[in-house]
Amino acid sequence: MMLQQIDHLGIAVNSLDEAIPYYENALGLKCEHREEVASQKVRTAFFECGQVHIELLEPMSEDSPIAKFIAKNGEGIHHIAFRTDNIEGQLKQASDNGVRLINEVPVDGAGGKLVAFLHPKSTRGVLTEFCMPK
Amino acid sequence: MMLQQIDHLGIAVNSLDEAIPYYENALGLKCEHREEVASQKVRTAFFECGQVHIELLEPMSEDSPIAKFIAKNGEGIHHIAFRTDNIEGQLKQASDNGVRLINEVPVDGAGGKLVAFLHPKSTRGVLTEFCMPK
Repeated sequence: MMLQQIDHLGIAVNSLDEAIPYYENALGLKCEHREEVASQKVRTAFFECGQVHIELLEPMSEDSPIAKFIAKNGEGIHHIAFRTDNIEGQLKQASDNGVRLINEVPVDGAGGKLVAFLHPKSTRGVLTEFCMPK
Repeated sequence: MMLQQIDHLGIAVNSLDEAIPYYENALGLKCEHREEVASQKVRTAFFECGQVHIELLEPMSEDSPIAKFIAKNGEGIHHIAFRTDNIEGQLKQASDNGVRLINEVPVDGAGGKLVAFLHPKSTRGVLTEFCMPK
């Protein structure tokens, strides 16, 4: 089973309003839309760059996973998301190869997708997401 | 000026021989080739995933930039590389917008490309590379 492409990169930032001008002015990317994901306690902003979206993640509260990430690591790349058309099969393949799953079954994510995360302790430090359009 | 696509993601690992089986077996990606980049003191392994390559980076010595990154942060995502057809113009645009450049002029990188890095202190924690095929 093959992953088709990288869907997006999640990047943790303290403030969307401060980070968006860097991506727009210094890199020349265009912010397509912003969205709150209440379940993850984050506000997001999306930029398209070829096949891949860059998803900036701003914590909505101090108990947001993104707030905890920034407290520990500072701002920076938070996760890689791979697109798949068979998220259950991809999770089984990872699990069968010894990977610890954060989500045993997919959950609702941003953009109306099903998503599931693999634990970075079993992916050599890279928080990894599988996502599938519904 | 627009960046066309993400060219690759650099991921720091302690050992290619230990990391490659995770990418091949758990994720189902295929290692395309391996290459030593003596100037950066790293051994690299490339996986294709849609438009983007994943570049695993193993330090060749303790004074490799990748060894220092792992000592500080552990294994994980090291940098994002954007492809451009005008690396000089892209560097000027970043610099004009207050970004500190690690490479004022492009240098030779892996795969026969010209590359230049932006300093993560001025890119909100994301070590960012521009690269251009020669």
